[in-house]
Amino acid sequence: MPKMKAAIFVEPGRIVLDEKPIPDIGPLGALVRITTTTICGTDVHILKGEYPVARGLTIGHEPVGVIEKLGSAVQGYREGQRVIAGAITPSGHSAACLCGCHSQDGAGTKHGWKPLGGWRFGNTIDGCQAEYVLVPDAMANLAPVPDGLSDEQVLMCPDIMSTGFSSAESGRIRIGDTVAVFAQGPIGLCATAGARLMGATSIIAVESVPARMEMARRIGADHVVDFTEADPVEEIRRLTDGRGVDVSIEALGRQETFEASLRVLRPGGTLSSLGVYSGDLRIPLDGFLAGLGDHTIRTTLCPGGKERMRRLMEVIASGRVDTRPLVTHRFKLDQIEEAYELFGHQRDGVLKVAVTP
Amino acid sequence: MPKMKAAIFVEPGRIVLDEKPIPDIGPLGALVRITTTTICGTDVHILKGEYPVARGLTIGHEPVGVIEKLGSAVQGYREGQRVIAGAITPSGHSAACLCGCHSQDGAGTKHGWKPLGGWRFGNTIDGCQAEYVLVPDAMANLAPVPDGLSDEQVLMCPDIMSTGFSSAESGRIRIGDTVAVFAQGPIGLCATAGARLMGATSIIAVESVPARMEMARRIGADHVVDFTEADPVEEIRRLTDGRGVDVSIEALGRQETFEASLRVLRPGGTLSSLGVYSGDLRIPLDGFLAGLGDHTIRTTLCPGGKERMRRLMEVIASGRVDTRPLVTHRFKLDQIEEAYELFGHQRDGVLKVAVTP
Amino acid sequence: MPKMKAAIFVEPGRIVLDEKPIPDIGPLGALVRITTTTICGTDVHILKGEYPVARGLTIGHEPVGVIEKLGSAVQGYREGQRVIAGAITPSGHSAACLCGCHSQDGAGTKHGWKPLGGWRFGNTIDGCQAEYVLVPDAMANLAPVPDGLSDEQVLMCPDIMSTGFSSAESGRIRIGDTVAVFAQGPIGLCATAGARLMGATSIIAVESVPARMEMARRIGADHVVDFTEADPVEEIRRLTDGRGVDVSIEALGRQETFEASLRVLRPGGTLSSLGVYSGDLRIPLDGFLAGLGDHTIRTTLCPGGKERMRRLMEVIASGRVDTRPLVTHRFKLDQIEEAYELFGHQRDGVLKVAVTP
Amino acid sequence: MPKMKAAIFVEPGRIVLDEKPIPDIGPLGALVRITTTTICGTDVHILKGEYPVARGLTIGHEPVGVIEKLGSAVQGYREGQRVIAGAITPSGHSAACLCGCHSQDGAGTKHGWKPLGGWRFGNTIDGCQAEYVLVPDAMANLAPVPDGLSDEQVLMCPDIMSTGFSSAESGRIRIGDTVAVFAQGPIGLCATAGARLMGATSIIAVESVPARMEMARRIGADHVVDFTEADPVEEIRRLTDGRGVDVSIEALGRQETFEASLRVLRPGGTLSSLGVYSGDLRIPLDGFLAGLGDHTIRTTLCPGGKERMRRLMEVIASGRVDTRPLVTHRFKLDQIEEAYELFGHQRDGVLKVAVTP
Repeated sequence: MPKMKAAIFVEPGRIVLDEKPIPDIGPLGALVRITTTTICGTDVHILKGEYPVARGLTIGHEPVGVIEKLGSAVQGYREGQRVIAGAITPSGHSAACLCGCHSQDGAGTKHGWKPLGGWRFGNTIDGCQAEYVLVPDAMANLAPVPDGLSDEQVLMCPDIMSTGFSSAESGRIRIGDTVAVFAQGPIGLCATAGARLMGATSIIAVESVPARMEMARRIGADHVVDFTEADPVEEIRRLTDGRGVDVSIEALGRQETFEASLRVLRPGGTLSSLGVYSGDLRIPLDGFLAGLGDHTIRTTLCPGGKERMRRLMEVIASGRVDTRPLVTHRFKLDQIEEAYELFGHQRDGVLKVAVTP
Repeated sequence: MPKMKAAIFVEPGRIVLDEKPIPDIGPLGALVRITTTTICGTDVHILKGEYPVARGLTIGHEPVGVIEKLGSAVQGYREGQRVIAGAITPSGHSAACLCGCHSQDGAGTKHGWKPLGGWRFGNTIDGCQAEYVLVPDAMANLAPVPDGLSDEQVLMCPDIMSTGFSSAESGRIRIGDTVAVFAQGPIGLCATAGARLMGATSIIAVESVPARMEMARRIGADHVVDFTEADPVEEIRRLTDGRGVDVSIEALGRQETFEASLRVLRPGGTLSSLGVYSGDLRIPLDGFLAGLGDHTIRTTLCPGGKERMRRLMEVIASGRVDTRPLVTHRFKLDQIEEAYELFGHQRDGVLKVAVTP
Repeated sequence: MPKMKAAIFVEPGRIVLDEKPIPDIGPLGALVRITTTTICGTDVHILKGEYPVARGLTIGHEPVGVIEKLGSAVQGYREGQRVIAGAITPSGHSAACLCGCHSQDGAGTKHGWKPLGGWRFGNTIDGCQAEYVLVPDAMANLAPVPDGLSDEQVLMCPDIMSTGFSSAESGRIRIGDTVAVFAQGPIGLCATAGARLMGATSIIAVESVPARMEMARRIGADHVVDFTEADPVEEIRRLTDGRGVDVSIEALGRQETFEASLRVLRPGGTLSSLGVYSGDLRIPLDGFLAGLGDHTIRTTLCPGGKERMRRLMEVIASGRVDTRPLVTHRFKLDQIEEAYELFGHQRDGVLKVAVTP
Repeated sequence: MPKMKAAIFVEPGRIVLDEKPIPDIGPLGALVRITTTTICGTDVHILKGEYPVARGLTIGHEPVGVIEKLGSAVQGYREGQRVIAGAITPSGHSAACLCGCHSQDGAGTKHGWKPLGGWRFGNTIDGCQAEYVLVPDAMANLAPVPDGLSDEQVLMCPDIMSTGFSSAESGRIRIGDTVAVFAQGPIGLCATAGARLMGATSIIAVESVPARMEMARRIGADHVVDFTEADPVEEIRRLTDGRGVDVSIEALGRQETFEASLRVLRPGGTLSSLGVYSGDLRIPLDGFLAGLGDHTIRTTLCPGGKERMRRLMEVIASGRVDTRPLVTHRFKLDQIEEAYELFGHQRDGVLKVAVTP
């Protein structure tokens, strides 16, 4: 059985590069040879043991690659085609998919729900920080990369851009909206770009790391508030003449930012939450206007599927948004432990890394 | 200056019937002679001092009456016409109204927002537990009562029915949905009726007072869960074969019900909240699926305005819903202190009272 | 190779019962033994040669049956299970499905679009007026019938009810709406029922056949206008005091009804069209308010997929709507030519027939 | 009674500059001294007698000016304030306004509907091609111009930009959409800008006048199709690899463009129509997929009201869109007949004119 290299979760604190068999494919799957992938904040949670996965699992959910082999029932693709797949891989045939809620495919069971319903790569099946990955339900998930786009140009599509943009979409941003985006990590930056793309005319980013503040401006923010220098709630009220924002986006996953997102929201506004929270959240009575503010709070899990990927690559191809500046460091797959070390500790101004087998 | 009787807030603990001048009207207002009104749970909060209003204010926001006099600029009505007005009286000309968020008219100021933005009757201006009430912005708010409908038939429209139905509307209930409604007081009962009216096919009401449980069944519930006999979250999961509900409605305003509303919600579902909360709320991490469940939480303040009232009276006129059984007790305005005594302590199985000057 | 009986399109004017092999199944399909099916108006168009299909095709797209055999890759079902499948059978994995437009699966090609994109049974593959039918993409399409529901209770779900209800859904009917439904054949009757189910409070059905007028009242119409006795546009304007309707539903597919549907619509209203038109349509300038009326015209093709079917069966199981009275005649599969004769000529007050192998 | 100069409709073929009294204001109105206005295509229809208005009416519906005097009941403004008002001036208190359909305010009567319901300026009341204009329902309609914006920067907001953008909004354009815009006159150009602002990534403009084709590229089009050189339907199918467009915008008001808009639309897509049609329209059977394509056709009348104007001026202030290049010619009010001559005959590459008293 041929072998490949893969980044494997051994135990909390240890993800190591090791060999494992190249996976077999069933009738509906596809084997993709990875050409570029990256590390996500969630992978770091796995590394730290904060998010539990099975020992021996290959990590990673952001694949760019080339079709190596197609399952016997897969039609509409050819071997050798350059493709990406989303971090979330909907089957297409679940009840969730059939009512348009593709991300929550498989989330429900008789015994309750699991978070991250439709997330399979590097969570419930082997992921793509490896030489090869098996893409399940290939016909729903493989998205051909348009000619002329490089691996790094599309590397943010599977997760970062899909998630970031979805916050603007779930916030139903309209032309002329004022929007606040809390935190400008890679996903927050894409939320800022998404808000701009949907027609918000006043985008206020909240951040304190100078390089991220600078990137926020470059990618679409009109104002950047350094929360270490001013209370962001007061500052946003000031910037909006007391009107508050139409949509606020939480892109960190902390009580403080969730709370601030609510406090800056005008009555009738929407809090679009991307954060992965690690404990109970508190809704402050005043920010919530005692439940009488016609507020909407909406959470969104990264949309996946080939059509989503096609649309995001269109955004890139049209030149509307360029996510290449988010890739600040590059590693070979052989160096992936080093890459985790850098990315996990947010060293050297890292935003995202590119990892190439 | 002619005088009238009115229920006046004197100080926490005291609402008394007293005399005050019949109000003057400006160019845009209308003087309405009250023929029937009622007491709301919010009025009891005012009585107890839990919701602060100015001393000397006339209480009440659910008017049924007859136009006595029209402001000089008011067109499209005639004196002697039977009318109702909503509890919330939008001006029509605010920025909030012009973007379709009529309930939040006037909510925003440079110094933050106040809850209950568009609520004026018995809050920021004199209310309708009196012989006369001045209706502001009459052209936006006076809704003629169709011939053949009695005062008691339309008495729930200004607040109870508008609020209750709005939870179903904000939940965007669809044909075939499963819906849970937590608490079956007057507003919860109207939420149940609204869910039924919008096509939910499995409506689970949660309540423990036998008369309210019975009324829930009568007005539209398919199942009634007595939360004193079974854990409602487990019971609802059981009733839905573990699938959870598409929409859950919180109609009480408590941490327990808010939390249960979230825990029974399927991924991708909507929590539609009507409750007026009196403290911070806690979002349980598991119920919220760590922020990854594609959930929507939406709060709604009673929609007002004449067109809303016209539509609700159409519901009554068509026979689709009959809210008369909610009126369990009747009082003269002279007996209003007695009415507060009964209603405030929820004595004698009271749901709503009718008060007639 | 075992044989079965099937209603086969031979040539325009001839659908005959004949023998053909029981189909083989691939990995994703399922073989269903038909227990009850029916004939649709579209089948009559096929019979007459007005809608072209391949010679030798088995006709029929409304299956109720029992799983006989499952494809090797099909999970989540068991042989012997009672199921239905929708008339439209989305794959789940097309771009159309992945953006929530399941009915249009497969509609697009480089050479233009074909109407009835996702319609396969009895159109592009063998249908279900036979002893057995092969259901493609079984995991997306097989919906188990809840215990206690008879074949005839769920027989309208695959097409008639799904299509009829979809017009109310596409019209976005709201509580308190006034709705006109043009034509009360089986689909129009289900549109009337759907409008009622979504909270319309004044439903005006237009029809002239007494039995259908009577059925319209029984299934939800508040008013029935006989268009042979009064001009329906004038009559509807009269019934609505000149306000017009919020939503009008076209359920016939003719110029006259399309035009009338538009003329009765209030500014800002929606024309929800179900009709299958057989020629160009004319939009009258006045009815369209010269293109300035903030009107919406929306067409809808029968939604399919197992989740849609589950929801429709919930409507039946809850007792909200009973479509059994639509089945006016019953035939054995052996008598299907006779059934076409009766149904095709609308003899004997027929609404729908039940056909049992 | 003080007099002012005004452009008055005398009879078909004649709009002349003459004197008439400066209007009196009622309690709810405001007198605005015009500083800049413009001529609309609709005004040319009035001039030619194609759209009937009363003789003696002042024409024009795109005011930029300064508050001269406020009605006695008007609050929240001060004299001397720079303002604009939308072409459509909703009252705020009609049933249409109260259900969010502000443009259709006043459209309905017992005797049918009139097109252009909420359009009053230069239609049912005196317009703004004059030294002064009376703005009705001032509190709903006066929008203060932000400091730093010139008259010409905001001159397109009242009509051209509001209408053009509304086509993108009514089309519900999403990130990654492909959009076709038929005709690139001033409104079509703003439709193109609006599509870009909402995140369309492939915008195909159809036009043949070189200056307009150039402007289309500058304001947001990715492709410009010259319909005199290629069949636009075929060209758009080619550009989209046969997939068609998600949204097509009709910005001319002709049968050919309406029909082409439909033919390029993918199943499930939306035709957003801005055109003012002058005769019946024909829907081609094939383009309409026989009524089975899940298509939406939506018409939109220019949204008005102060909040809409505020948002559009935010778009200008943020630098997202610059409409100044649309103003190609400038005239004094004294020269308005000359301006009509030039604009009416589309001479000298005119797009829009600025007229200053």
